[in-house]
Amino acid sequence: MKNLSDYVTTIPDFPEKGIMFRDITSVLQDKEGLKLAVDKLIELSKDLDFDIVAGTESRGFLMGMPLAYALGKGFVLIRKKGKLPRETVSKEYALEYGTAEIEVHKDAIKKGDKVLLIDDLIATGGTIKAAAELVEELGGTVAGLIFLIELIDLNGRDRLKGYEVRSALQYNEK
Amino acid sequence: MKNLSDYVTTIPDFPEKGIMFRDITSVLQDKEGLKLAVDKLIELSKDLDFDIVAGTESRGFLMGMPLAYALGKGFVLIRKKGKLPRETVSKEYALEYGTAEIEVHKDAIKKGDKVLLIDDLIATGGTIKAAAELVEELGGTVAGLIFLIELIDLNGRDRLKGYEVRSALQYNEK
Repeated sequence: MKNLSDYVTTIPDFPEKGIMFRDITSVLQDKEGLKLAVDKLIELSKDLDFDIVAGTESRGFLMGMPLAYALGKGFVLIRKKGKLPRETVSKEYALEYGTAEIEVHKDAIKKGDKVLLIDDLIATGGTIKAAAELVEELGGTVAGLIFLIELIDLNGRDRLKGYEVRSALQYNEK
Repeated sequence: MKNLSDYVTTIPDFPEKGIMFRDITSVLQDKEGLKLAVDKLIELSKDLDFDIVAGTESRGFLMGMPLAYALGKGFVLIRKKGKLPRETVSKEYALEYGTAEIEVHKDAIKKGDKVLLIDDLIATGGTIKAAAELVEELGGTVAGLIFLIELIDLNGRDRLKGYEVRSALQYNEK
């Protein structure tokens, strides 16, 4: 019996020297790995009270949809700017170099909706923080943030004070 | 009781005049819509013999993961060139203007694997044809191709002769 962490591939010095890249594609391409991963995310969400699941493009889609289906919830796509066809609200946030912008349909989250945010990995937390702000801008509340992998030395949690943050596996990036 | 098609939003003249854009985000953001969609994809795959599910970035991820989880299969990510960290094979294909390139990890599909390809929508079929060729290049066989939506007036099926192609909903693009 293998553990979830046995399916994660670590690629040293990718994309640059000193970085230990944590690859989850090797988890998902194995049927046992995929089941362990999604079961673990479901377990992490179990005592949270939420109406709907939301995930950011594109690896948040991988994690969020099976959880939403298994728990009988809807799923909200948070996408890079310019890809959603109906009326949106958007949020710009800082990257290491430059900025990025994500958006969500205005009608995807209703006032009072309790939203579970989900992604494959939390690094510095910039994207998921912007996603949480979009939820709140639409009148929703963030019921929790769950991740398959947390890079603890990047301190993403410090940005997310006041939110319930949970992860299945913890690693250092360096 | 609503039907799956009741959850699809049609946006006239998007992204350009004369195009009827079929938006599936309104399906997924509703818990009943999401369940109907995934249940239907599972039903379409029921008599197909496959070992693993594969989907193209990023909306193929939305469809493929819940199906893989529900049926106890693995999921293979087919991504735009340059995003996968390990050794890949890639395929360039023609777009209306210019070309695009997708790739897959070499170890994601083993010789003899029967692969179910899945996406949200088939238009001209260029991307999914390239995905099928990648599967075959790695020694796998395509067990079938399933889509939530088929734009029948774009004749994507003509490109996919010899494959088993199935869709949940059929529309014209114009």
